[in-house]
Amino acid sequence: MTQTRLVEVRQNVLKHNDVLARQLRIRFQEAGVFVASFVSSPGSGKTAFLEKTLTMLRPNYRIAALVGDLATANDAARLSRAEVPVKQIETGTICHLEAQMVENALGDWDLNELDCLFIENVGNLVCPSSYDLGEALRVVLMSTTEGEDKPRKYPTIFNTADVAVITKMDLATAVEFDLKTARASIQAVRPGMKVFEVSSKTGAGMDEWRQFLQSQFVAKAETLLLETV
Amino acid sequence: MTQTRLVEVRQNVLKHNDVLARQLRIRFQEAGVFVASFVSSPGSGKTAFLEKTLTMLRPNYRIAALVGDLATANDAARLSRAEVPVKQIETGTICHLEAQMVENALGDWDLNELDCLFIENVGNLVCPSSYDLGEALRVVLMSTTEGEDKPRKYPTIFNTADVAVITKMDLATAVEFDLKTARASIQAVRPGMKVFEVSSKTGAGMDEWRQFLQSQFVAKAETLLLETV
Repeated sequence: MTQTRLVEVRQNVLKHNDVLARQLRIRFQEAGVFVASFVSSPGSGKTAFLEKTLTMLRPNYRIAALVGDLATANDAARLSRAEVPVKQIETGTICHLEAQMVENALGDWDLNELDCLFIENVGNLVCPSSYDLGEALRVVLMSTTEGEDKPRKYPTIFNTADVAVITKMDLATAVEFDLKTARASIQAVRPGMKVFEVSSKTGAGMDEWRQFLQSQFVAKAETLLLETV
Repeated sequence: MTQTRLVEVRQNVLKHNDVLARQLRIRFQEAGVFVASFVSSPGSGKTAFLEKTLTMLRPNYRIAALVGDLATANDAARLSRAEVPVKQIETGTICHLEAQMVENALGDWDLNELDCLFIENVGNLVCPSSYDLGEALRVVLMSTTEGEDKPRKYPTIFNTADVAVITKMDLATAVEFDLKTARASIQAVRPGMKVFEVSSKTGAGMDEWRQFLQSQFVAKAETLLLETV
Protein backbone atom coordinates (compact mmCIF):
# COMPACT_ATOMS: atom_id res chain seq x y z
CA MET A 1 0.00 0.00 0.00
CA THR A 2 2.68 2.46 1.06
CA GLN A 3 4.85 1.24 -1.83
CA THR A 4 2.04 1.83 -4.35
CA ARG A 5 1.55 5.38 -3.11
CA LEU A 6 5.30 5.99 -3.32
CA VAL A 7 5.38 4.87 -6.95
CA GLU A 8 2.41 7.13 -7.72
CA VAL A 9 3.94 10.18 -6.06
CA ARG A 10 7.31 9.45 -7.64
CA GLN A 11 5.67 9.32 -11.06
CA ASN A 12 4.13 12.73 -10.41
CA VAL A 13 7.52 14.16 -9.41
CA LEU A 14 9.10 12.72 -12.56
CA LYS A 15 6.27 14.06 -14.72
CA HIS A 16 6.71 17.49 -13.16
CA ASN A 17 10.47 17.26 -13.80
CA ASP A 18 9.90 16.26 -17.44
CA VAL A 19 7.67 19.28 -18.04
CA LEU A 20 10.28 21.62 -16.55
CA ALA A 21 13.12 19.90 -18.45
CA ARG A 22 11.23 20.33 -21.72
CA GLN A 23 10.82 24.06 -21.01
CA LEU A 24 14.53 24.31 -20.19
CA ARG A 25 15.47 22.50 -23.41
CA ILE A 26 13.42 24.96 -25.46
CA ARG A 27 15.02 27.87 -23.57
CA PHE A 28 18.51 26.49 -24.25
CA GLN A 29 17.70 25.97 -27.93
CA GLU A 30 16.26 29.45 -28.37
CA ALA A 31 19.35 30.98 -26.75
CA GLY A 32 21.60 28.80 -28.93
CA VAL A 33 23.43 27.28 -25.96
CA PHE A 34 24.65 23.70 -26.15
CA VAL A 35 24.12 21.90 -22.83
CA ALA A 36 26.02 18.77 -21.76
CA SER A 37 25.63 16.98 -18.43
CA PHE A 38 28.12 14.66 -16.71
CA VAL A 39 27.08 11.71 -14.53
CA SER A 40 29.27 9.14 -12.72
CA SER A 41 30.17 7.55 -9.38
CA PRO A 42 31.67 9.77 -6.70
CA GLY A 43 35.40 10.14 -7.29
CA SER A 44 35.51 9.00 -10.90
CA GLY A 45 37.09 12.25 -12.03
CA LYS A 46 34.12 14.31 -13.27
CA THR A 47 35.45 17.59 -11.89
CA ALA A 48 39.02 17.11 -13.17
CA PHE A 49 37.67 16.17 -16.61
CA LEU A 50 35.29 19.12 -16.60
CA GLU A 51 38.07 21.54 -15.55
CA LYS A 52 40.21 20.27 -18.43
CA THR A 53 37.27 20.58 -20.84
CA LEU A 54 36.47 24.14 -19.74
CA THR A 55 40.11 25.25 -20.00
CA MET A 56 40.38 23.69 -23.46
CA LEU A 57 37.23 25.33 -24.85
CA ARG A 58 37.52 28.70 -23.12
CA PRO A 59 39.71 30.41 -25.78
CA ASN A 60 37.11 29.81 -28.50
CA TYR A 61 33.75 29.56 -26.78
CA ARG A 62 31.70 31.37 -24.14
CA ILE A 63 31.14 28.68 -21.53
CA ALA A 64 29.78 28.23 -18.01
CA ALA A 65 29.20 25.37 -15.59
CA LEU A 66 26.81 24.24 -12.87
CA VAL A 67 28.03 21.64 -10.37
CA GLY A 68 25.88 19.57 -8.03
CA ASP A 69 26.90 18.10 -4.69
CA LEU A 70 25.10 17.16 -1.47
CA ALA A 71 27.34 19.52 0.49
CA THR A 72 30.37 21.82 0.05
CA ALA A 73 31.25 24.24 -2.73
CA ASN A 74 34.61 22.49 -3.31
CA ASP A 75 33.93 21.69 -6.96
CA ALA A 76 32.88 25.23 -7.85
CA ALA A 77 36.09 26.47 -6.20
CA ARG A 78 38.16 23.97 -8.22
CA LEU A 79 36.40 24.82 -11.47
CA SER A 80 36.77 28.56 -10.97
CA ARG A 81 40.46 27.97 -11.82
CA ALA A 82 39.28 27.51 -15.41
CA GLU A 83 38.17 31.16 -15.26
CA VAL A 84 34.64 30.66 -16.51
CA PRO A 85 31.38 31.39 -14.63
CA VAL A 86 30.60 28.49 -12.26
CA LYS A 87 27.76 27.99 -9.77
CA GLN A 88 27.47 25.29 -7.12
CA ILE A 89 24.13 23.59 -6.47
CA GLU A 90 23.97 22.01 -3.01
CA THR A 91 21.27 19.34 -2.96
CA GLY A 92 21.29 18.57 0.79
CA THR A 93 20.20 14.96 1.04
CA ILE A 94 18.95 14.59 -2.54
CA CYS A 95 20.95 12.12 -4.63
CA HIS A 96 20.56 13.82 -8.02
CA LEU A 97 19.99 17.15 -9.75
CA GLU A 98 16.49 18.07 -10.93
CA ALA A 99 15.39 20.44 -13.69
CA GLN A 100 14.04 22.86 -11.06
CA MET A 101 17.47 23.10 -9.39
CA VAL A 102 19.08 23.85 -12.74
CA GLU A 103 16.50 26.52 -13.50
CA ASN A 104 16.98 28.14 -10.08
CA ALA A 105 20.77 28.06 -10.42
CA LEU A 106 20.70 29.72 -13.83
CA GLY A 107 19.28 32.75 -12.02
CA ASP A 108 20.20 35.95 -13.83
CA TRP A 109 22.68 34.41 -16.28
CA ASP A 110 21.93 35.63 -19.81
CA LEU A 111 21.88 32.41 -21.83
CA ASN A 112 22.25 34.40 -25.05
CA GLU A 113 25.76 35.23 -23.87
CA LEU A 114 26.72 31.54 -23.75
CA ASP A 115 27.76 28.98 -26.38
CA CYS A 116 27.96 26.06 -24.03
CA LEU A 117 26.82 25.09 -20.53
CA PHE A 118 28.15 22.07 -18.64
CA ILE A 119 26.21 20.51 -15.77
CA GLU A 120 28.03 18.18 -13.37
CA ASN A 121 25.54 15.97 -11.54
CA VAL A 122 25.84 14.60 -7.99
CA GLY A 123 28.20 11.59 -7.88
CA ASN A 124 25.75 8.72 -8.20
CA LEU A 125 25.27 5.95 -10.75
CA VAL A 126 21.60 5.35 -9.96
CA CYS A 127 19.41 8.33 -9.10
CA PRO A 128 20.36 10.85 -11.83
CA SER A 129 19.22 8.46 -14.58
CA SER A 130 15.52 9.29 -14.13
CA TYR A 131 15.89 13.08 -14.17
CA ASP A 132 16.01 14.92 -17.48
CA LEU A 133 17.78 18.27 -17.05
CA GLY A 134 17.03 19.62 -20.52
CA GLU A 135 20.55 18.80 -21.69
CA ALA A 136 21.40 18.05 -25.35
CA LEU A 137 24.09 15.53 -24.44
CA ARG A 138 24.37 13.27 -21.40
CA VAL A 139 27.86 11.96 -20.75
CA VAL A 140 28.42 9.01 -18.40
CA LEU A 141 31.93 8.67 -16.97
CA MET A 142 33.58 5.62 -15.46
CA SER A 143 37.14 5.47 -14.20
CA THR A 144 39.63 2.67 -14.77
CA THR A 145 39.93 2.34 -10.98
CA GLU A 146 36.26 1.33 -10.64
CA GLY A 147 36.66 -1.89 -12.64
CA GLU A 148 35.18 -3.01 -15.95
CA ASP A 149 31.72 -4.19 -14.88
CA LYS A 150 29.98 -0.95 -13.90
CA PRO A 151 27.84 -0.70 -17.08
CA ARG A 152 26.35 -4.16 -16.47
CA LYS A 153 25.75 -3.36 -12.81
CA TYR A 154 24.23 0.09 -13.42
CA PRO A 155 22.59 -0.38 -16.84
CA THR A 156 19.98 2.39 -16.56
CA ILE A 157 22.46 5.24 -16.32
CA PHE A 158 24.37 3.93 -19.34
CA ASN A 159 21.11 3.53 -21.24
CA THR A 160 20.03 7.12 -20.61
CA ALA A 161 23.44 8.56 -21.56
CA ASP A 162 24.53 9.50 -25.09
CA VAL A 163 28.27 8.88 -24.85
CA ALA A 164 30.62 7.23 -22.35
CA VAL A 165 34.01 8.46 -21.17
CA ILE A 166 36.54 6.17 -19.50
CA THR A 167 38.65 8.37 -17.21
CA LYS A 168 41.99 7.92 -15.42
CA MET A 169 43.49 5.99 -18.34
CA ASP A 170 46.92 6.85 -16.90
CA LEU A 171 46.12 4.42 -14.06
CA ALA A 172 44.89 1.62 -16.33
CA THR A 173 48.05 -0.46 -16.04
CA ALA A 174 48.46 0.07 -12.29
CA VAL A 175 44.93 -1.16 -11.61
CA GLU A 176 45.06 -3.90 -14.28
CA PHE A 177 42.12 -2.39 -16.12
CA ASP A 178 40.98 -4.51 -19.07
CA LEU A 179 39.83 -2.07 -21.73
CA LYS A 180 38.39 -4.77 -23.98
CA THR A 181 36.18 -6.14 -21.18
CA ALA A 182 35.05 -2.63 -20.23
CA ARG A 183 34.15 -1.79 -23.83
CA ALA A 184 32.26 -5.10 -24.13
CA SER A 185 30.40 -4.28 -20.92
CA ILE A 186 29.33 -0.89 -22.34
CA GLN A 187 28.31 -2.39 -25.68
CA ALA A 188 26.31 -5.17 -23.97
CA VAL A 189 24.18 -2.53 -22.25
CA ARG A 190 24.15 0.10 -24.97
CA PRO A 191 25.17 -1.27 -28.38
CA GLY A 192 26.89 1.30 -30.60
CA MET A 193 27.60 3.76 -27.79
CA LYS A 194 30.50 6.11 -28.56
CA VAL A 195 33.28 5.69 -25.99
CA PHE A 196 36.17 8.06 -25.23
CA GLU A 197 39.29 7.05 -23.32
CA VAL A 198 40.91 9.95 -21.52
CA SER A 199 43.32 11.01 -18.82
CA SER A 200 42.74 14.43 -17.34
CA LYS A 201 46.21 14.14 -15.83
CA THR A 202 48.23 13.47 -18.97
CA GLY A 203 45.77 15.00 -21.44
CA ALA A 204 45.55 11.73 -23.40
CA GLY A 205 42.37 11.46 -25.46
CA MET A 206 41.34 15.05 -24.74
CA ASP A 207 41.87 16.17 -28.31
CA GLU A 208 39.46 13.58 -29.69
CA TRP A 209 36.94 14.65 -27.01
CA ARG A 210 37.34 18.33 -27.98
CA GLN A 211 36.81 17.52 -31.66
CA PHE A 212 33.67 15.56 -30.82
CA LEU A 213 32.26 18.43 -28.72
CA GLN A 214 33.02 20.93 -31.49
CA SER A 215 31.24 18.69 -34.03
CA GLN A 216 28.24 18.73 -31.70
CA PHE A 217 28.27 22.54 -31.59
CA VAL A 218 28.43 22.67 -35.41
CA ALA A 219 25.63 20.11 -35.78
CA LYS A 220 23.55 22.17 -33.38
CA ALA A 221 24.24 25.45 -35.21
CA GLU A 222 23.23 23.82 -38.51
CA THR A 223 19.99 22.57 -36.99
CA LEU A 224 19.24 26.07 -35.72
CA LEU A 225 20.01 27.48 -39.18
CA LEU A 226 17.64 24.99 -40.79
CA GLU A 227 14.94 25.84 -38.30
CA THR A 228 15.16 29.57 -39.05
CA VAL A 229 15.14 29.09 -42.85
CA MET B 1 2.32 20.12 -3.10
CA THR B 2 3.72 17.06 -4.84
CA GLN B 3 6.98 17.51 -2.91
CA THR B 4 5.14 17.58 0.44
CA ARG B 5 3.31 14.36 -0.40
CA LEU B 6 6.61 12.78 -1.44
CA VAL B 7 8.19 13.66 1.90
CA GLU B 8 5.18 12.22 3.74
CA VAL B 9 5.16 8.97 1.81
CA ARG B 10 8.94 8.69 2.11
CA GLN B 11 8.65 9.07 5.88
CA ASN B 12 6.13 6.24 5.93
CA VAL B 13 8.46 4.02 3.93
CA LEU B 14 11.33 4.83 6.28
CA LYS B 15 9.16 4.20 9.33
CA HIS B 16 8.09 0.85 7.87
CA ASN B 17 11.77 0.03 7.21
CA ASP B 18 12.73 0.99 10.76
CA VAL B 19 10.13 -1.36 12.22
CA LEU B 20 11.37 -4.23 10.06
CA ALA B 21 15.02 -3.42 10.82
CA ARG B 22 14.31 -3.49 14.54
CA GLN B 23 12.71 -6.94 14.17
CA LEU B 24 15.72 -8.13 12.17
CA ARG B 25 18.13 -6.77 14.79
CA ILE B 26 16.32 -8.71 17.52
CA ARG B 27 16.35 -11.83 15.34
CA PHE B 28 20.10 -11.47 14.76
CA GLN B 29 20.74 -10.92 18.47
CA GLU B 30 18.67 -13.90 19.49
CA ALA B 31 20.52 -16.11 17.03
CA GLY B 32 23.86 -14.70 18.22
CA VAL B 33 24.92 -13.60 14.74
CA PHE B 34 27.04 -10.48 14.34
CA VAL B 35 25.92 -8.45 11.32
CA ALA B 36 28.10 -5.90 9.52
CA SER B 37 27.10 -3.92 6.43
CA PHE B 38 29.40 -2.27 3.87
CA VAL B 39 28.50 0.95 2.03
CA SER B 40 30.55 2.92 -0.51
CA SER B 41 30.68 4.38 -4.02
CA PRO B 42 30.54 1.97 -6.94
CA GLY B 43 34.01 0.61 -7.64
CA SER B 44 35.64 1.52 -4.32
CA GLY B 45 36.57 -2.09 -3.66
CA LYS B 46 33.76 -3.35 -1.40
CA THR B 47 33.63 -6.79 -2.99
CA ALA B 48 37.41 -7.35 -3.01
CA PHE B 49 37.59 -6.23 0.64
CA LEU B 50 34.65 -8.44 1.57
CA GLU B 51 36.16 -11.44 -0.24
CA LYS B 52 39.41 -10.93 1.69
CA THR B 53 37.49 -10.58 4.96
CA LEU B 54 35.46 -13.75 4.35
CA THR B 55 38.55 -15.78 3.42
CA MET B 56 40.35 -14.52 6.53
CA LEU B 57 37.52 -15.33 8.96
CA ARG B 58 36.34 -18.58 7.41
CA PRO B 59 38.73 -20.92 9.22
CA ASN B 60 37.47 -19.77 12.65
CA TYR B 61 33.91 -18.57 12.15
CA ARG B 62 30.71 -19.65 10.43
CA ILE B 63 30.04 -16.78 8.05
CA ALA B 64 27.74 -15.83 5.18
CA ALA B 65 27.16 -12.82 2.96
CA LEU B 66 24.38 -10.98 1.15
CA VAL B 67 25.33 -8.68 -1.73
CA GLY B 68 23.15 -6.01 -3.30
CA ASP B 69 23.33 -4.68 -6.85
CA LEU B 70 20.90 -3.16 -9.33
CA ALA B 71 21.64 -5.93 -11.82
CA THR B 72 23.92 -8.96 -12.34
CA ALA B 73 25.01 -11.65 -9.89
CA ASN B 74 28.70 -10.89 -10.56
CA ASP B 75 29.50 -10.10 -6.93
CA ALA B 76 27.94 -13.27 -5.57
CA ALA B 77 29.94 -15.23 -8.14
CA ARG B 78 33.15 -13.47 -7.05
CA LEU B 79 32.43 -13.99 -3.36
CA SER B 80 31.60 -17.65 -3.79
CA ARG B 81 35.38 -18.10 -4.26
CA ALA B 82 35.63 -17.53 -0.51
CA GLU B 83 33.62 -20.73 -0.10
CA VAL B 84 30.99 -19.37 2.24
CA PRO B 85 27.22 -19.14 1.59
CA VAL B 86 26.48 -16.03 -0.49
CA LYS B 87 23.22 -14.70 -1.91
CA GLN B 88 22.78 -11.88 -4.43
CA ILE B 89 19.99 -9.34 -4.00
CA GLU B 90 19.08 -7.61 -7.28
CA THR B 91 17.34 -4.31 -6.54
CA GLY B 92 16.29 -3.42 -10.11
CA THR B 93 16.21 0.38 -10.16
CA ILE B 94 16.36 0.89 -6.37
CA CYS B 95 19.52 2.63 -5.20
CA HIS B 96 19.85 0.96 -1.79
CA LEU B 97 19.03 -2.18 0.18
CA GLU B 98 16.03 -2.20 2.51
CA ALA B 99 15.33 -4.32 5.59
CA GLN B 100 12.59 -6.16 3.69
CA MET B 101 15.07 -7.23 0.96
CA VAL B 102 17.46 -8.54 3.62
CA GLU B 103 14.66 -10.47 5.31
CA ASN B 104 13.53 -11.98 2.00
CA ALA B 105 17.08 -12.93 1.06
CA LEU B 106 17.71 -14.68 4.37
CA GLY B 107 15.03 -17.13 3.28
CA ASP B 108 15.62 -20.52 4.81
CA TRP B 109 19.08 -19.82 6.22
CA ASP B 110 19.28 -20.95 9.85
CA LEU B 111 20.77 -17.94 11.62
CA ASN B 112 21.66 -20.10 14.61
CA GLU B 113 24.21 -21.77 12.36
CA LEU B 114 26.03 -18.48 11.74
CA ASP B 115 28.51 -16.40 13.76
CA CYS B 116 28.69 -13.51 11.34
CA LEU B 117 26.75 -12.15 8.39
CA PHE B 118 28.10 -9.49 6.02
CA ILE B 119 25.79 -7.36 3.90
CA GLU B 120 27.25 -5.48 0.93
CA ASN B 121 24.97 -2.60 -0.05
CA VAL B 122 24.42 -1.20 -3.57
CA GLY B 123 27.31 1.08 -4.61
CA ASN B 124 25.96 4.48 -3.61
CA LEU B 125 27.13 7.16 -1.18
CA VAL B 126 23.71 8.74 -0.71
CA CYS B 127 20.64 6.50 -0.64
CA PRO B 128 21.74 3.68 1.73
CA SER B 129 22.27 6.16 4.57
CA SER B 130 18.55 6.36 5.44
CA TYR B 131 17.90 2.61 5.53
CA ASP B 132 18.63 0.65 8.69
CA LEU B 133 19.22 -3.01 7.84
CA GLY B 134 19.33 -4.26 11.42
CA GLU B 135 23.13 -4.46 11.29
CA ALA B 136 25.31 -4.15 14.42
CA LEU B 137 28.11 -2.39 12.54
CA ARG B 138 27.95 -0.16 9.49
CA VAL B 139 31.22 0.21 7.63
CA VAL B 140 31.73 3.01 5.10
CA LEU B 141 34.50 2.47 2.57
CA MET B 142 36.30 5.07 0.45
CA SER B 143 39.14 4.31 -1.94
CA THR B 144 42.32 6.34 -2.37
CA THR B 145 41.42 6.74 -6.05
CA GLU B 146 38.26 8.71 -5.18
CA GLY B 147 40.13 11.61 -3.58
CA GLU B 148 40.20 12.93 -0.04
CA ASP B 149 37.02 15.03 0.06
CA LYS B 150 34.28 12.41 -0.13
CA PRO B 151 33.34 12.60 3.61
CA ARG B 152 32.70 16.35 3.37
CA LYS B 153 30.72 15.91 0.16
CA TYR B 154 28.64 12.96 1.42
CA PRO B 155 28.41 13.69 5.16
CA THR B 156 25.23 11.72 5.89
CA ILE B 157 26.65 8.34 4.97
CA PHE B 158 29.72 8.95 7.12
CA ASN B 159 27.51 10.10 9.97
CA THR B 160 25.38 6.98 9.91
CA ALA B 161 28.39 4.64 9.73
CA ASP B 162 30.32 3.27 12.73
CA VAL B 163 33.78 2.89 11.22
CA ALA B 164 35.51 3.97 8.00
CA VAL B 165 37.85 1.94 5.81
CA ILE B 166 40.19 3.56 3.29
CA THR B 167 40.73 0.99 0.52
CA LYS B 168 43.28 0.63 -2.31
CA MET B 169 46.11 1.96 -0.15
CA ASP B 170 48.52 0.28 -2.61
CA LEU B 171 47.50 2.96 -5.14
CA ALA B 172 47.88 5.89 -2.71
CA THR B 173 51.20 7.07 -4.14
CA ALA B 174 50.18 6.62 -7.78
CA VAL B 175 47.07 8.78 -7.29
CA GLU B 176 48.84 11.26 -4.95
CA PHE B 177 46.37 10.49 -2.18
CA ASP B 178 46.89 12.69 0.89
CA LEU B 179 46.08 10.51 3.90
CA LYS B 180 46.27 13.40 6.37
CA THR B 181 43.70 15.43 4.43
CA ALA B 182 41.44 12.38 4.07
CA ARG B 183 41.60 11.65 7.79
CA ALA B 184 40.86 15.32 8.57
CA SER B 185 37.90 15.17 6.19
CA ILE B 186 36.49 12.14 8.04
CA GLN B 187 37.08 13.69 11.47
CA ALA B 188 35.44 16.98 10.40
CA VAL B 189 32.25 15.09 9.61
CA ARG B 190 32.42 12.42 12.31
CA PRO B 191 34.84 13.33 15.13
CA GLY B 192 36.47 10.29 16.74
CA MET B 193 35.52 7.88 13.97
CA LYS B 194 37.76 4.81 13.81
CA VAL B 195 39.53 4.58 10.45
CA PHE B 196 41.27 1.57 8.87
CA GLU B 197 43.72 1.82 5.98
CA VAL B 198 43.81 -1.33 3.87
CA SER B 199 44.82 -2.85 0.58
CA SER B 200 42.89 -5.94 -0.46
CA LYS B 201 45.60 -6.50 -3.06
CA THR B 202 48.66 -6.53 -0.81
CA GLY B 203 46.85 -7.46 2.41
CA ALA B 204 48.18 -4.37 4.18
CA GLY B 205 46.05 -3.35 7.17
CA MET B 206 43.94 -6.50 7.00
CA ASP B 207 45.31 -7.87 10.23
CA GLU B 208 44.25 -4.81 12.21
CA TRP B 209 40.83 -5.06 10.58
CA ARG B 210 40.55 -8.76 11.54
CA GLN B 211 41.51 -8.03 15.14
CA PHE B 212 38.91 -5.26 15.32
CA LEU B 213 36.17 -7.56 13.97
CA GLN B 214 37.12 -10.29 16.43
CA SER B 215 36.96 -7.79 19.31
CA GLN B 216 33.46 -6.92 18.12
CA PHE B 217 32.45 -10.59 18.17
CA VAL B 218 33.83 -10.94 21.72
CA ALA B 219 32.09 -7.75 22.89
CA LYS B 220 28.87 -9.08 21.42
CA ALA B 221 29.24 -12.50 23.03
CA GLU B 222 29.85 -10.83 26.40
CA THR B 223 26.73 -8.71 26.01
CA LEU B 224 24.72 -11.81 25.21
CA LEU B 225 26.19 -13.52 28.23
CA LEU B 226 25.24 -10.60 30.46
CA GLU B 227 21.74 -10.59 29.04
CA THR B 228 21.21 -14.26 29.80
CA VAL B 229 22.59 -13.99 33.36
